[in-house]
Amino acid sequence: MRIHLQSPAADPLFDFSHVSWEAAVARAANAGGPYEVSVGSGAEDFRAAIETAEALICDASVIKAFFPCQAPRLRLLFVTNAGLDRLAPFDWLPPGAILMNNRGTHAAKAGEFGIMAILMLASQIPAMATDQRAGVWRKRWGHVAAGENLTIIGLGALGGAVARHASAFGMNVTGVRARPAPHPHCLAVAGTDRLDAILPDTRFLLLACPLTDATRGLMDRRRLALLPKGAGVANIGRGELLDQDALCDMLDSGHLSGAVLDVFSPEPVPPGHRIWTTPNLIVSPHTAADDPATYNAVSLDLFLDNLRAWREGRPLPNRFDIARGY
Amino acid sequence: MRIHLQSPAADPLFDFSHVSWEAAVARAANAGGPYEVSVGSGAEDFRAAIETAEALICDASVIKAFFPCQAPRLRLLFVTNAGLDRLAPFDWLPPGAILMNNRGTHAAKAGEFGIMAILMLASQIPAMATDQRAGVWRKRWGHVAAGENLTIIGLGALGGAVARHASAFGMNVTGVRARPAPHPHCLAVAGTDRLDAILPDTRFLLLACPLTDATRGLMDRRRLALLPKGAGVANIGRGELLDQDALCDMLDSGHLSGAVLDVFSPEPVPPGHRIWTTPNLIVSPHTAADDPATYNAVSLDLFLDNLRAWREGRPLPNRFDIARGY
Repeated sequence: MRIHLQSPAADPLFDFSHVSWEAAVARAANAGGPYEVSVGSGAEDFRAAIETAEALICDASVIKAFFPCQAPRLRLLFVTNAGLDRLAPFDWLPPGAILMNNRGTHAAKAGEFGIMAILMLASQIPAMATDQRAGVWRKRWGHVAAGENLTIIGLGALGGAVARHASAFGMNVTGVRARPAPHPHCLAVAGTDRLDAILPDTRFLLLACPLTDATRGLMDRRRLALLPKGAGVANIGRGELLDQDALCDMLDSGHLSGAVLDVFSPEPVPPGHRIWTTPNLIVSPHTAADDPATYNAVSLDLFLDNLRAWREGRPLPNRFDIARGY
Repeated sequence: MRIHLQSPAADPLFDFSHVSWEAAVARAANAGGPYEVSVGSGAEDFRAAIETAEALICDASVIKAFFPCQAPRLRLLFVTNAGLDRLAPFDWLPPGAILMNNRGTHAAKAGEFGIMAILMLASQIPAMATDQRAGVWRKRWGHVAAGENLTIIGLGALGGAVARHASAFGMNVTGVRARPAPHPHCLAVAGTDRLDAILPDTRFLLLACPLTDATRGLMDRRRLALLPKGAGVANIGRGELLDQDALCDMLDSGHLSGAVLDVFSPEPVPPGHRIWTTPNLIVSPHTAADDPATYNAVSLDLFLDNLRAWREGRPLPNRFDIARGY
């Protein structure tokens, strides 16, 4: 099988290599093959490979740069991002190609980041960082997170990993998702239609869902105001899930006690934007879910899992549902 | 028995009350009694009570303000701080009185703060906060903490709680303490004399030991330099455990990647001090271990445990060893 690995346009930390491919094949159970693998970066490499490639592994920046294009033999397209909202609408997808995202790659890092963000909110770190910016020593008392109510919107790989950590810390975790079903690390899981009833009892809110037509602006000003005074908000999903200005207003007013945000609207956050100086808000530059030391290795492992399922005629675990949006 | 509860001089969040005492008695197994309990604040209340008190519960600020003094009937003195280094030398202690600290009260909050600090170092939050102060969007990639080496100096209630969390996250935890012994959440525990050999393999260092003659300046400039490039440091013990200027120098130079500090020398950190602006350093105002919502309740629970041991002629779990310093 003819496989092409195209490195990101401008992020050498995430470059593919033949070495990383061979290592992934060595790790895989029943890796199959033989494979004729090319590794490239830049337009020339891409154009030389796409004519013959049956499988392509690349990130969204490559799709943005080179699709639509002639890819006559392409059957498997594995995009090394979890949220593919930037790639909608999907009319650029070659007919006959199955689109996959790499959900799962981010679970370890995002899970750690998510519970860290909740602990930071419980310990008032965002307010302490604001005091530090002002050079002011002010005693601020945090609270133990154990026993507090955490609501997680989205229980995929990211939200599920945070739920696991949070339940180990003794937090009361409520999950909210489009299609509710019991979850081993949540006391309860509710449909999005019940969100308004859950928010008033939410001490900490974590957004970890994909951005879709159904979730865009989900935490609008009205819903943010349903959170009790002193609540904290973390977002590792997408900036457009919430009304960022309303969030900043409620941090300014003190209704919310803190926020830890990894995603914004727009990104990068422009110089001089109010996000930089809103009190009790911590900015992480959309890197919460990514560990360059393990990212490509885990992505390739996932691809090989999916490739094996495809060879064996089973459903592909990472197949992207275009209608659903994730 | 005649018991007096004296509230702190200037911290109403931590005031005692008859209600909190009665609640603690109701929670206790075999609380004993009857008890004649007074609750006070300020000098008049203290002087009126200390003449007859057989047991006194108060914080270090009360000791500083009113001791030495005549306390002819005092048998049990329970100080609601864990580190009593500020109260040395202990020549103010009335003869015949047993001194206790409240080690254990801080475990839940400090444990959460400690693992949060390590996860913040792993995710590069201190560097992100520095970028945020400058209003600069700069991609910074953190790493998964699982599988990394964490060295914890001090394995009492604080360090032990962090070790438990860190091992649950899959970190490789090495403990360092004065008297080494196996610990259920450490891969290895070494004596302080082996610290120099351990530091070069330490990705994250957490200081959680008491301040004594043996630990003052333990992490001096030479030892901080033994940490590998990119290591991160957290301190929830006492500021004087490390050479703060050397730490700042190594953050300035980039040898260390980040620091999360709850304790400083001096405290409060004065206006204009370099601590406020040293890059990749997060300041927490010495509140890591304290949750006002639970602090007094847990302290009173501990006191009643010790009181029962005293009545029954058993060793007191929180007895403070003046020679040892903790």
